[in-house]
Amino acid sequence: MTGERDFIASRLAPLATTAAARGLADDAAVWTPPLGRDLVFTHDVLAAGVHYLPSDPPADIAWKLLAVNLSDLAAMGAAPAGVLLGLALSAAEDDDWRRAFTQGLGQALDHFGVALWGGDTVSGISAAVLGLTAIGHVEPGTALSRAGARPGDHVWVSGSIGDAGLGLAIAQVTLPFDKALLSRFRRPEPRLSLGRALVGMATACLDVSDGLLIDADRLAKASGVGLVIDLAVLPLSMAAAARTITDADLLARATAGDDYELLFTAPPLADIAAIAGRTRVTRIGRVEAGAGVMLAGGKILPDRLGWEH
Amino acid sequence: MTGERDFIASRLAPLATTAAARGLADDAAVWTPPLGRDLVFTHDVLAAGVHYLPSDPPADIAWKLLAVNLSDLAAMGAAPAGVLLGLALSAAEDDDWRRAFTQGLGQALDHFGVALWGGDTVSGISAAVLGLTAIGHVEPGTALSRAGARPGDHVWVSGSIGDAGLGLAIAQVTLPFDKALLSRFRRPEPRLSLGRALVGMATACLDVSDGLLIDADRLAKASGVGLVIDLAVLPLSMAAAARTITDADLLARATAGDDYELLFTAPPLADIAAIAGRTRVTRIGRVEAGAGVMLAGGKILPDRLGWEH
Repeated sequence: MTGERDFIASRLAPLATTAAARGLADDAAVWTPPLGRDLVFTHDVLAAGVHYLPSDPPADIAWKLLAVNLSDLAAMGAAPAGVLLGLALSAAEDDDWRRAFTQGLGQALDHFGVALWGGDTVSGISAAVLGLTAIGHVEPGTALSRAGARPGDHVWVSGSIGDAGLGLAIAQVTLPFDKALLSRFRRPEPRLSLGRALVGMATACLDVSDGLLIDADRLAKASGVGLVIDLAVLPLSMAAAARTITDADLLARATAGDDYELLFTAPPLADIAAIAGRTRVTRIGRVEAGAGVMLAGGKILPDRLGWEH
Repeated sequence: MTGERDFIASRLAPLATTAAARGLADDAAVWTPPLGRDLVFTHDVLAAGVHYLPSDPPADIAWKLLAVNLSDLAAMGAAPAGVLLGLALSAAEDDDWRRAFTQGLGQALDHFGVALWGGDTVSGISAAVLGLTAIGHVEPGTALSRAGARPGDHVWVSGSIGDAGLGLAIAQVTLPFDKALLSRFRRPEPRLSLGRALVGMATACLDVSDGLLIDADRLAKASGVGLVIDLAVLPLSMAAAARTITDADLLARATAGDDYELLFTAPPLADIAAIAGRTRVTRIGRVEAGAGVMLAGGKILPDRLGWEH
């Protein structure tokens, strides 16, 4: 096993190519922000055995670590700029793991057009804990929030819901292999373009990370309204639709989490399809007076709405 | 044990009082930076059993987590603005621990005038890993670096060296109790004022975290010069001086780390004492041609210069 300094010099420094990173040689990164923008900051942690499976490919873990943070920026309508890594590694993350992880990180940074600015690496931990801080920017005063939904607004969701939950079951080998579903679990695609397009259009927004229903409940409570969701129109991929037969299946899709789709509200007259461009968006409900998520047609909510942290 | 959501709502949200934090209710923090400043970013990780002792008081751990990151900002000459936390907690961090940790964090945030903007908390880890991202700012183009030392410059260090290493021995009960030394280990004071004053004065700067000699070696190599350190003039506190009898004692002080003092270089004519104000600064050497740290008088360097990560 190479030391931390060698790991940083040989694996991470080659990814930190912008001036802001200073070759990872200084005590901190220095970045000149674009003039007259608000800055947006998020930090999410992935822990081995909690947020990912030790058997997951290291390159996919790196991708997911970046993607879940960029998804938070997308939910705010922000454009990403740079990231800092906090890697606490155990003996299980050997040289092979580290090489694959940093290769995957490099791919993901390129894919999303984001710079690695700095961070910290420590070894000797009993189980890996991976943290990432993402920094983005947005027009002043326009960042989206969870708190602006108003009765009469429509409720929208991007893409398809439930694929990642099926992908997790595939990764755990409790469901037969399906490449597309597994990829939705391991390589989520944050909705960065849609998030930016929703600035000035959406009245409230968040990303679906813990389950559509629990995240809808959070948006509803932050806005002080009720969100009525019609599960009959929940957007499913073809692969997920083929595995969704019963009402219980449908509830499993709506509470599985890890979707990293955007759930948002907008006034009825907003032309969401036009601003979404090629991104699929589906109207799945409406905002009413109330204090939480409800199901259309007076259906009863399940006891479990998603992942509680 | 309360859940993460309760912990965030009851313990962390009360500390996140600035508008940027949005009550920790959104997916990310939003901050309007001061106009026309460069931004400075650092992220350091403290792991239980690696960087602190499980017996350390939780309030002191919180203080140290903030202080070590602010020390990186100080080394760049930056003024701190806000922080994001990444807390991965085990069962050992129970409600009492969490209450004491957040109380200490609140004290430290107040003490240093820094805002809590956001972050992430996860539970179910086998041993705690605590990450913190600190964001600061500096006049454009003036951030200090490790790379500007030139032959002929003088080498300076702030405060006193070796106290924290003795404090660690006291915490490990291998040395008799001394309140001041223990406090230097558990509650370091980053040199934020001095760092800002060194902008435009110092040719190179870093903070002493792993040991004076190893950090001097890093500054020397980043600058492509030699740093000749005279240990005979190493600044010691009275408590440390009383415990420093032999040459081996002196080398122990110079390789102990956790000092969080600033080591910097400046041209011979720079009036460092004047800009340091009430902060003690000591000239401990000179810059020559070379490629690393050396000891004055041709003395032999020890095999171990400090903590290697």
